[in-house]
Amino acid sequence: MAKVEIKYCTQCRWLLRSAWMAQELLSTFEQEITELSLLPASGGIFEVSANGQLVWSRKQQGRFPEITELKQAVRDAIAPDKPLGHADKKPSAV
Amino acid sequence: MAKVEIKYCTQCRWLLRSAWMAQELLSTFEQEITELSLLPASGGIFEVSANGQLVWSRKQQGRFPEITELKQAVRDAIAPDKPLGHADKKPSAV
Repeated sequence: MAKVEIKYCTQCRWLLRSAWMAQELLSTFEQEITELSLLPASGGIFEVSANGQLVWSRKQQGRFPEITELKQAVRDAIAPDKPLGHADKKPSAV
Repeated sequence: MAKVEIKYCTQCRWLLRSAWMAQELLSTFEQEITELSLLPASGGIFEVSANGQLVWSRKQQGRFPEITELKQAVRDAIAPDKPLGHADKKPSAV
């Protein structure tokens, strides 16, 4: 049961990539995400939150996430035990 | 300042059309929509709400909306004075 939010700058025309990421997250976390919100904003903002926790900020990280690292960040916040298959980071074992 | 919600059945695989409609609405109502939520559901549900008001129900209407009539329904709920250009219904004048 998780709410994910994607806040994006409309002036920067980031609706398309935000909507694409929304679909990727809803597809991967079909059992976990109960609501995915797209939030139009301005000023170069691109932020993804999961259950109120900021998991990506373009301002902080200085770039957009790769889709696999975004999924890992969302997974860590809402379903830490969920494996992400071949796209997943290998656990730092031994 | 409006919140729009699209509730869709995941078993029916309606994510893609829902995400497409989300993009159409966010593009057309860039100044009006402050949050657009995609809500995974089941049981053949496809419903669109605007500010808590149900503006489309596939169960009630028996079909999916054309994108232009969906925009008109959302417009009527959140921005009744907004013209929708060539896609708009002609006013029933004189």
